[in-house]
Amino acid sequence: MLYFSCDYAEGCHPKVLEALTLTNMESTPGYGEDDYCDRAKEKIRQYINCPNADIYFLVGGTQTNQTVIDSILSNCDGVVAAATGHVAVHEAGAIEYSGHKVITIPGHDGKIAPLELKQMLIDHYADESAEHMVNPGMVYISYPTEYGTLYSKQELEDISSICREYEIPLFIDGARLAYGLAAADDITMKDIAALSDVFYIGGTKVGALFGEAVVFTKGNTPKHMITQIKQHGALLAKGRLLGIQFAALFTDDLYMKMGKHAVECASSIRKALVEKGYQLYVPNPTNQIFVVMDNSKLKAFGKEVAYGFWEKYDDTHTVIRIATSWATQNDAVEALKKIL
Amino acid sequence: MLYFSCDYAEGCHPKVLEALTLTNMESTPGYGEDDYCDRAKEKIRQYINCPNADIYFLVGGTQTNQTVIDSILSNCDGVVAAATGHVAVHEAGAIEYSGHKVITIPGHDGKIAPLELKQMLIDHYADESAEHMVNPGMVYISYPTEYGTLYSKQELEDISSICREYEIPLFIDGARLAYGLAAADDITMKDIAALSDVFYIGGTKVGALFGEAVVFTKGNTPKHMITQIKQHGALLAKGRLLGIQFAALFTDDLYMKMGKHAVECASSIRKALVEKGYQLYVPNPTNQIFVVMDNSKLKAFGKEVAYGFWEKYDDTHTVIRIATSWATQNDAVEALKKIL
Amino acid sequence: MLYFSCDYAEGCHPKVLEALTLTNMESTPGYGEDDYCDRAKEKIRQYINCPNADIYFLVGGTQTNQTVIDSILSNCDGVVAAATGHVAVHEAGAIEYSGHKVITIPGHDGKIAPLELKQMLIDHYADESAEHMVNPGMVYISYPTEYGTLYSKQELEDISSICREYEIPLFIDGARLAYGLAAADDITMKDIAALSDVFYIGGTKVGALFGEAVVFTKGNTPKHMITQIKQHGALLAKGRLLGIQFAALFTDDLYMKMGKHAVECASSIRKALVEKGYQLYVPNPTNQIFVVMDNSKLKAFGKEVAYGFWEKYDDTHTVIRIATSWATQNDAVEALKKIL
Amino acid sequence: MLYFSCDYAEGCHPKVLEALTLTNMESTPGYGEDDYCDRAKEKIRQYINCPNADIYFLVGGTQTNQTVIDSILSNCDGVVAAATGHVAVHEAGAIEYSGHKVITIPGHDGKIAPLELKQMLIDHYADESAEHMVNPGMVYISYPTEYGTLYSKQELEDISSICREYEIPLFIDGARLAYGLAAADDITMKDIAALSDVFYIGGTKVGALFGEAVVFTKGNTPKHMITQIKQHGALLAKGRLLGIQFAALFTDDLYMKMGKHAVECASSIRKALVEKGYQLYVPNPTNQIFVVMDNSKLKAFGKEVAYGFWEKYDDTHTVIRIATSWATQNDAVEALKKIL
Repeated sequence: MLYFSCDYAEGCHPKVLEALTLTNMESTPGYGEDDYCDRAKEKIRQYINCPNADIYFLVGGTQTNQTVIDSILSNCDGVVAAATGHVAVHEAGAIEYSGHKVITIPGHDGKIAPLELKQMLIDHYADESAEHMVNPGMVYISYPTEYGTLYSKQELEDISSICREYEIPLFIDGARLAYGLAAADDITMKDIAALSDVFYIGGTKVGALFGEAVVFTKGNTPKHMITQIKQHGALLAKGRLLGIQFAALFTDDLYMKMGKHAVECASSIRKALVEKGYQLYVPNPTNQIFVVMDNSKLKAFGKEVAYGFWEKYDDTHTVIRIATSWATQNDAVEALKKIL
Repeated sequence: MLYFSCDYAEGCHPKVLEALTLTNMESTPGYGEDDYCDRAKEKIRQYINCPNADIYFLVGGTQTNQTVIDSILSNCDGVVAAATGHVAVHEAGAIEYSGHKVITIPGHDGKIAPLELKQMLIDHYADESAEHMVNPGMVYISYPTEYGTLYSKQELEDISSICREYEIPLFIDGARLAYGLAAADDITMKDIAALSDVFYIGGTKVGALFGEAVVFTKGNTPKHMITQIKQHGALLAKGRLLGIQFAALFTDDLYMKMGKHAVECASSIRKALVEKGYQLYVPNPTNQIFVVMDNSKLKAFGKEVAYGFWEKYDDTHTVIRIATSWATQNDAVEALKKIL
Repeated sequence: MLYFSCDYAEGCHPKVLEALTLTNMESTPGYGEDDYCDRAKEKIRQYINCPNADIYFLVGGTQTNQTVIDSILSNCDGVVAAATGHVAVHEAGAIEYSGHKVITIPGHDGKIAPLELKQMLIDHYADESAEHMVNPGMVYISYPTEYGTLYSKQELEDISSICREYEIPLFIDGARLAYGLAAADDITMKDIAALSDVFYIGGTKVGALFGEAVVFTKGNTPKHMITQIKQHGALLAKGRLLGIQFAALFTDDLYMKMGKHAVECASSIRKALVEKGYQLYVPNPTNQIFVVMDNSKLKAFGKEVAYGFWEKYDDTHTVIRIATSWATQNDAVEALKKIL
Repeated sequence: MLYFSCDYAEGCHPKVLEALTLTNMESTPGYGEDDYCDRAKEKIRQYINCPNADIYFLVGGTQTNQTVIDSILSNCDGVVAAATGHVAVHEAGAIEYSGHKVITIPGHDGKIAPLELKQMLIDHYADESAEHMVNPGMVYISYPTEYGTLYSKQELEDISSICREYEIPLFIDGARLAYGLAAADDITMKDIAALSDVFYIGGTKVGALFGEAVVFTKGNTPKHMITQIKQHGALLAKGRLLGIQFAALFTDDLYMKMGKHAVECASSIRKALVEKGYQLYVPNPTNQIFVVMDNSKLKAFGKEVAYGFWEKYDDTHTVIRIATSWATQNDAVEALKKIL
């Protein structure tokens, strides 16, 4: 069986496992107050050229989105997101559970349009009923998006600039950040840091057992942040596990190397798909491929390949997701291409 | 100045004020444990032919929606509503504040379409990611809607039937119930009670100083309902004020008479508008008129008439709301018609 | 039957009813945006000598406590209160429902001790686990307390000073403020305003049908306060009802006159009780009397007097509450004294 | 440096690491839908002789307490706990954040007294104001407690029986369950399962990198439990990591063996302390030792031993915690004893 159903199907990169193994029996303080966390934070600060960034390590994506959004927003604020955004659809209402509305605007292959964002804000503040409505207190975007698409640098600058104008923070969900940056022409993690107020570097989907690094880039860490994390059930007792992993990810450029590998695998598969006449459902350059498959073909395909069901296309076709990752073997890519 | 901007601009109907005045210095127990509340509940039970209905009196609409929805839903349930529904737009996130997502489906002049509701439910349960999504735990509709439109009996039966099939309660927001029923051909409050699991009879907009009567129609009152109301800050100390008012509203058919009066006033104005060539933005038969006005005309109009701004129509036109109510004077209607 | 069970058993003071009646059919904007509210606010600002105070009118006490506390506190803050405080015991968990812990310290006949408050704060910040604990973000006291007792001016100054030192706001619940101020030797509403960051002037228990006036005294109104109020289901549609009532309460010193009347009635009853050898359970100078009664006596007493059950004292005695109010008739006081 | 400050200072037991390493590059479905989780659950079901138990693996203790309590309780329910309980003190208000009050009763060296629990319930339901108070909807105890003490079998039976009588579930927090069971004379994990409605088997403090196994013992799993877990940010993407670890913990009795080892180490240290005349602050038989130390002695001690500060005892003495664990080396125990 070839496994292409998602990018969190394996454990962690061997370098990460090695680091965890080497340090396993050491005794350290808990809750992230250890040296490994400090070192990992310093590596990230240097990498993003943001010496005063405040960094917190959390365990998973939904937890991170919930904790970051809730800790930043005031009571009657909501978070603006694409209607297809992860926080709007696939987090079981974790944002609403924390008391905040997800204010949706259209998603265009997963992306929000700067002009539509601006118009929404203009309309909101022009509305005579604005005081009876949820205040747009934050903008959430994912990079890459849930559809694997990427904002251009210009688009990110425009969104960032609108957020500055309206004095609302921009939060970038980087669950798959390495896969986005590896596929981008003109954007680096430094740009992500510079253009956002807070973003996170996804580890779970990029080589860690688990872990997301939240970066507050502008001296804007909410008060009592450790207490906030604890309150959301998100403070890992053995916090060093996160520090050790992120230190490994940011050693010898491992994080970006894994990103490149996955993107190369995906590009190779994508090329083969196009050559064989398949229709890409949402063209994108990152590690997720959304492709339309004939249902009769799919039945056989599914016996050899574990893929992700995305949605029904029509009565005889289905949209599936083929995801590569740091763990994808070149052999598997070749084998998959033969099956297509 | 003619006042047509909303249906909650005056105090209460003289009969209601009389009842409050007559009882003012009586001493009664608090929190709705008085005889006036009991009597008002009994009157309502008889009126809707629902002898076992459980009835609670709350103060205002948003409070009622928040308390009813939150008390019925489980943690990870959301409430399905039209994208234009009051709970989705104009309650400052009161539902999300209580932890629940408002799951929106399209609003058609304020109404949800039974087939679209059903399709949403089918899609939700067919989705492989359903466990990662908010569970649709309730359907919310307003009667009349925020646009003054009415569901037909068939539509209500269809929605009710879908709710039965999926075993989710149907909640009908009757903030302007009298104005809807007075304009309806084929629906009575008995039908509303029979087809819903819980609904409320709006008093604030129909002759009371304030007050909404929540009716659980199917022996389905949530546990500890008084405690739930208290917890939401919605338990009025001098609860009898609500009982006294609703008893007056349900004496000599006052509630429905007020509804009819407002609808007749609106019909008369609507007829005049059409005759004079105005475009109705959302045609409807109830007490709210949404009409497109030329901005130049509107300037003069606004000096004589207090109206409600609804939204910009185009660069030279505006949609305004003209609302009648139990308090609308026939003289004012005639005066308004002359100004049009 | 003589009615002494609580201070919210009647409607409103005749002057308040008169004001409501006179204005009943006027048309005004909703949600407190009317002139009556403006005038009432101005009267209060003058009365408390606090020209920049921000004032909001809400409907009831629990609602007010919930909205004020939740709008001021950050996520991981709790509110410090006496273990016997209303917010800690008798609000059905309304504060926790809004996400905040009530951090209790001992109540001494309803009062917190300044030294104990200070020690709690010292201990909290000295605790190595402080980051894993709820942050004390506000102090809540009631004046008078739930036991009818009063803080001395010195005590209030001490508590206020501790709050300044730790930069946490002091919130004074004045549900029965008039009854406290009328009984106090050395404290005026100006002092309450000067020493607190936010307090509320109770109307429900002092002559209004309902209504509490929240006063932010230090330019410290939370952002988007109207939206916050709406979100908590606490924004009254016909907001003018609150303005009209508070304007009446603050005309011709009515509020304080009602306070004095109730306190004089209580003092007269209290004196009679002491003369007849009854034991006062919690001695206090305000409108609530807590007295120990022999159960055999109580049985007969209860046939003539509606009183409040407070708690079991021992196997043969019960603590009851006798409450006077603005509505207490002098005849009833004399009749009660004869029965004792 | 000898490390005795806590029981979560190291990574995981070598057997657990071995299992993680062996499976690291396997591809499996996410979110706990893998075979490893199934196998681990089956092992636990057999171990506790509870074939129909529903088991969920979560990451950490506070997260588990928050998710379990919130998923079981209705809106206006609170959870009864000792005033010293972890949920009451050291979880940053995670329970209140989820909307529920922690109703505290006295802790006696960390334990609640069955008679006091019963009296609280009797008093609550006898209180005329019960509807205005938080409903006691669940009882939370920890085994062992935060002070390392243990309930006797009789005490557990009494508490369980009271819960049955009042129809409220009993939740046992087993963050250190192995250390409790290893020290207990007469209680097994089967008893814990039989007497509770839900409990959790702590992994974080007993040999796992992280992980807690929640066991619903009576067919009482809340509806949509996976969605609830997701909503609380507690659903681990690579869920198999939890299954792999718990399968290892429940192979060859590893979990209980680790418990016994830690308890033997603690007993040996405790014996030495008593012989040398130290005062035990809270005598207990489990892996945590609370001992009173002279401050002058402590200064030197702290240079050689990492201990946990507990609290100030008096001006010249401090209570410290010495914790053993599965990772404690016998050499370290002997070295510590020499230093004492």
